[in-house]
Amino acid sequence: MATVKLWTDQDVAVNPRVKAVFDDIRSSRNSDFVNNFWRALANQPELLERTWTSVKEVMIKPGAIDPLTKELVYIAASTINGCSYCIHSHTAAARAKGMSDQQHAELLAVIGMAAETNALANALQIPVDPEFTI
Amino acid sequence: MATVKLWTDQDVAVNPRVKAVFDDIRSSRNSDFVNNFWRALANQPELLERTWTSVKEVMIKPGAIDPLTKELVYIAASTINGCSYCIHSHTAAARAKGMSDQQHAELLAVIGMAAETNALANALQIPVDPEFTI
Amino acid sequence: MATVKLWTDQDVAVNPRVKAVFDDIRSSRNSDFVNNFWRALANQPELLERTWTSVKEVMIKPGAIDPLTKELVYIAASTINGCSYCIHSHTAAARAKGMSDQQHAELLAVIGMAAETNALANALQIPVDPEFTI
Amino acid sequence: MATVKLWTDQDVAVNPRVKAVFDDIRSSRNSDFVNNFWRALANQPELLERTWTSVKEVMIKPGAIDPLTKELVYIAASTINGCSYCIHSHTAAARAKGMSDQQHAELLAVIGMAAETNALANALQIPVDPEFTI
Amino acid sequence: MATVKLWTDQDVAVNPRVKAVFDDIRSSRNSDFVNNFWRALANQPELLERTWTSVKEVMIKPGAIDPLTKELVYIAASTINGCSYCIHSHTAAARAKGMSDQQHAELLAVIGMAAETNALANALQIPVDPEFTI
Amino acid sequence: MATVKLWTDQDVAVNPRVKAVFDDIRSSRNSDFVNNFWRALANQPELLERTWTSVKEVMIKPGAIDPLTKELVYIAASTINGCSYCIHSHTAAARAKGMSDQQHAELLAVIGMAAETNALANALQIPVDPEFTI
Repeated sequence: MATVKLWTDQDVAVNPRVKAVFDDIRSSRNSDFVNNFWRALANQPELLERTWTSVKEVMIKPGAIDPLTKELVYIAASTINGCSYCIHSHTAAARAKGMSDQQHAELLAVIGMAAETNALANALQIPVDPEFTI
Repeated sequence: MATVKLWTDQDVAVNPRVKAVFDDIRSSRNSDFVNNFWRALANQPELLERTWTSVKEVMIKPGAIDPLTKELVYIAASTINGCSYCIHSHTAAARAKGMSDQQHAELLAVIGMAAETNALANALQIPVDPEFTI
Repeated sequence: MATVKLWTDQDVAVNPRVKAVFDDIRSSRNSDFVNNFWRALANQPELLERTWTSVKEVMIKPGAIDPLTKELVYIAASTINGCSYCIHSHTAAARAKGMSDQQHAELLAVIGMAAETNALANALQIPVDPEFTI
Repeated sequence: MATVKLWTDQDVAVNPRVKAVFDDIRSSRNSDFVNNFWRALANQPELLERTWTSVKEVMIKPGAIDPLTKELVYIAASTINGCSYCIHSHTAAARAKGMSDQQHAELLAVIGMAAETNALANALQIPVDPEFTI
Repeated sequence: MATVKLWTDQDVAVNPRVKAVFDDIRSSRNSDFVNNFWRALANQPELLERTWTSVKEVMIKPGAIDPLTKELVYIAASTINGCSYCIHSHTAAARAKGMSDQQHAELLAVIGMAAETNALANALQIPVDPEFTI
Repeated sequence: MATVKLWTDQDVAVNPRVKAVFDDIRSSRNSDFVNNFWRALANQPELLERTWTSVKEVMIKPGAIDPLTKELVYIAASTINGCSYCIHSHTAAARAKGMSDQQHAELLAVIGMAAETNALANALQIPVDPEFTI
């Protein structure tokens, strides 16, 4: 039910520009599995290249936030945005990076609490305390 | 510009039910500062009590996710929900819990990337890969 | 800080099409006060006319849901949409239609609870029970 | 396609903590049916207990807003949050509490109108009238 | 899985008020196909009439923005609102009005970029430059 | 009230990495004015570079969608996301690229209509017509 065609490996094989990205995805992740997100973006090679380059820089390159924490943040954003695909893919990614059931339970509790207090603060239009500004 | 009155310490002093919560906030946080969120909720003592009890259980009680990570998740949810108050208060809280400028920079990058790919996945209505379901 | 000019009564007076709508707003509400929403829409007479006609049909014409309940629903939608202007204007409207402090407190509790369980149900991607479908 | 296991009655039977909540859901609602939301939360007993306790306090305990109105508010919030599960479950709950087709029609009209004017007010960045502030 | 019945052509045939709208949809679009959105709204004849009248005025009546651009704007709004039905129907409509694959690719890139910078600007709570106000 | 420092031209002058981006912004736009969005991102040079590179590719590089249409799409996304800063900056940008008052009026009408029908389609959980899938 995608709004675009999902590229099969056969489709990818005959498009060198797309194939280069798929090859990099496979080697960067050390896995042959390429998920549907990239198979949909394959219709737009420029967007595919730019998005994958950004994902590598933001999510894969080592930094000051560990990879699992980044996935938890990603799940939070995806949940509030109501992105079913992203919730599934990043929950799976978080589990693959070691998220325990207890961590998942606490993550859900934090997201739920944030959603509730976000709604309360918005409904009450609470002014920002001067102590919170820089 | 709140839609309700913000309770001063004088208002709180004469309402034992609200005072009990404010006292607990102060002692739990080891600080005399009580931010406007609670001063607005003070108009609804039941909601005040229930919300503070939940915040203590979700955000303060030690668990499987460390306190700073919880704040990063909270900022992500608050950002996507567009809650100005919550973004300010939880960015300040994250800094108080040790968030470095580099961590803030990476957090922003992850939230921005999530928002972008959430939009792309929604616009493309990408079906969830069987590999992501349990 | 609006992105368009807010029309003063002087501006309105010299534009018969806009004036007709403002006159109808004043007589329908039995009040001389016309709030900024309409002063901004005045720049787009067609949109002004169509929006006011819809507001009269949806919010003012007697129906199966009482006027105060409609305002509570409006506040809920405006809160989740993060529309600061609408939260302010419809909270004021609900109070004018008799919303008590206790009702406001319970409304906030319901909105907050809905936001929390919405996030949980989305994060968990819970399938709809067959019992809920028609 | 949930991101967690949905607990069957057999699973529940052997976990006293979860069973206690399910028993209370059944007796509070006077029905043997327990919907998937709780079967998903069962994986996180603390979150299950806290959420059910809140639902009882907010949605079931008699208060200043009647039960059907609370469901209408819940549907509004769930619709704007795009929570498919919640829209289904609370539309069913509203019908069970007596929502007529005409009330449903008017509810939809109010939610739609709110969504439209929320977007207009945001796009125009209309400043809040002093008359709406307290 | 709609929360209301979808009206068949047989249902429509025996309700003159609904039939009048369906006839107008068919003749305005010069097509016999009437999509599910209208078949769901048929349960609420007033809402059906008002919505169709607005769609004709906003989307069909010639104006200063061409029909394809309107569809691109509609897709953007529907994507951010996470409305699966609307994304499908308006992507199909845009294609029917001539949207090329390259235009679709660029549209996705703009929506994705907007979503990302919206999140960044919100997370950073950037004050509006005086140069942007009127 | 930003959550980070906004860099002045003096701050920028002594950071070659940031200065290079600001120089490119100024020459690409043929204007000395650099708006606050970039002055906030300057705290995160990597994010600044990546975001500006993307903006140039998506918004400035000639393509199949004209620059004004891209701004209209951007305003739609920013409005639904409730990003006050982005609504202001892209409404100003659209005007600079020739958006007429009439086009603005029609844009608002389309965004408002989309928001309304998005809410209706979500509230009704309308199934996608087979005719809309590819």
